[in-house]
Amino acid sequence: MALFLDIHRNVEGITPEGLAEAHKKDVEVQQKHGVTFKNYWYSADEKAIFCLCEAPNKEAAAAVHAEAHGGVADEIIEVTEGH
Amino acid sequence: MALFLDIHRNVEGITPEGLAEAHKKDVEVQQKHGVTFKNYWYSADEKAIFCLCEAPNKEAAAAVHAEAHGGVADEIIEVTEGH
Repeated sequence: MALFLDIHRNVEGITPEGLAEAHKKDVEVQQKHGVTFKNYWYSADEKAIFCLCEAPNKEAAAAVHAEAHGGVADEIIEVTEGH
Repeated sequence: MALFLDIHRNVEGITPEGLAEAHKKDVEVQQKHGVTFKNYWYSADEKAIFCLCEAPNKEAAAAVHAEAHGGVADEIIEVTEGH
């Protein structure tokens, strides 16, 4: 299992409630893709969302957002967590 | 206190050891700027580093990297953590 940070930019109309709803939909479908969304961070002012997930590969991470709500990331980067 | 995600792109020569050393230097100077670095994630292939910190403001977050090792971020985004 690998760790991915996905980056959404230029997202109009970010609200905490809208993101919580989208995240809930991600969580509902993630298991069948072998993905676990761990955290997300956002800025409405900067129109940016960052999601951290564990996934078998980049395609699986992308598939969760695509199926859950269609709000796919602009970039998905496989990352290592520092210590 | 606010939460900031800083983004470093096009960073040449990322190694786990080099980042751990830079992070150690951040931690050594962060207190006098009122900053706490919490986590970081990186991709050597994508030449990208993402650091999450608590700071009183964006300038303080930037000042830690500047003083510790000079590797300042390309972007610093004030973020809210989702739940």
